[in-house]
Amino acid sequence: MLRTQFEEELNKLHNQFYSMGTQVSAQVNKAVRAFVSHDRDLAEEVIEEDQQVNDQETKLEKKSLEMIALQQPVSHDLRTIITVLKASSDLERMGDHAVSIAKATINLKGEERIHIVEADISLMGERVKSIVDASLNAYIQGDADRAREIASWDDTVNQMYGEIQNKTLTAMEENKETITTGKDYLMTIIYLERIGDYAKNLCEWIVYLKTGKIVEL
Amino acid sequence: MLRTQFEEELNKLHNQFYSMGTQVSAQVNKAVRAFVSHDRDLAEEVIEEDQQVNDQETKLEKKSLEMIALQQPVSHDLRTIITVLKASSDLERMGDHAVSIAKATINLKGEERIHIVEADISLMGERVKSIVDASLNAYIQGDADRAREIASWDDTVNQMYGEIQNKTLTAMEENKETITTGKDYLMTIIYLERIGDYAKNLCEWIVYLKTGKIVEL
Repeated sequence: MLRTQFEEELNKLHNQFYSMGTQVSAQVNKAVRAFVSHDRDLAEEVIEEDQQVNDQETKLEKKSLEMIALQQPVSHDLRTIITVLKASSDLERMGDHAVSIAKATINLKGEERIHIVEADISLMGERVKSIVDASLNAYIQGDADRAREIASWDDTVNQMYGEIQNKTLTAMEENKETITTGKDYLMTIIYLERIGDYAKNLCEWIVYLKTGKIVEL
Repeated sequence: MLRTQFEEELNKLHNQFYSMGTQVSAQVNKAVRAFVSHDRDLAEEVIEEDQQVNDQETKLEKKSLEMIALQQPVSHDLRTIITVLKASSDLERMGDHAVSIAKATINLKGEERIHIVEADISLMGERVKSIVDASLNAYIQGDADRAREIASWDDTVNQMYGEIQNKTLTAMEENKETITTGKDYLMTIIYLERIGDYAKNLCEWIVYLKTGKIVEL
């Protein structure tokens, strides 16, 4: 294969990864909106679209493996492919967690809500989505310093997690009608927190892509 | 590098991966035992040992990437390395979840227990550990058929998850003193269920290793 043809394939891979990332980010956003606005139709959409996310991961994995096997790339080219190969799983799992949030939305059957907690979950969702988007931007710009910075934002998510957990538990103790709903709130914030973790993993792969170093951020 | 020397490195990588797997399996086992026997010292051990698991993952990733870059392996050799590169993250996350269970153990501060649920969590933990161990055995034996079979066991874990969740919620509704503990039970079973998912991912990589096919089990 000609060098230019290989470069074209590499560029395509890079763009497809980014495109998968934006779709996953949209899924996270939709799942949180569906949850806080009790929109079961929107939640169903998230569940349906997950197959596309899974298909994209499989496609990226296959393509990456094929390029490594057939082209035997080195240095930055190899790192570009490895990043896609590794980080596509992180994206896929963010998508899985969006589905879990969507399923929690569908589970809620008119039970007692805790409005103050739902408002907080909405904020936490926005925060997590902004971290996912910032990570994807750092990826597309190949900005390792920015990736390191974004990884540190995860602390605010953990803080939100702790606060929402406490508020939910207090509400559950005060009114047992909120116990089932509260359980779904607790699940949802675990999933959001994990999505933040996966974004951090993506940041680690951006650092690797630019520097060749495996780091733990 | 001589072919035999490369083969030796490959074999070493394979063994190191398996060794990381057995350590992670031990961490899962310990975390569940600590949780159900309220053993905070044992939980602390799990948290301390996690650094070793993380270090092993980093080492395996570095070694895999180095071998791909320097040796440009093909076919089964390449797949062996790719499997380690990808599945080491699954092992590392199983370890993370063992830590989360250990943290839940430490959080529990003499709150009201629900003994019947703890017995079930113990069983679920054993089930998950047996799936992790079976996956590792399938890996070491390179048995793709067995890997496919093991992946299907995940259904029983999901069933246990549903049952324990319902029992926990009922107990929380009946006695609000159990709400904080119940929350930790709910978290613990999410983590166990996720560990089962990661074992399923490992099974998918075993199928790839033997057949070259990317599958979703």
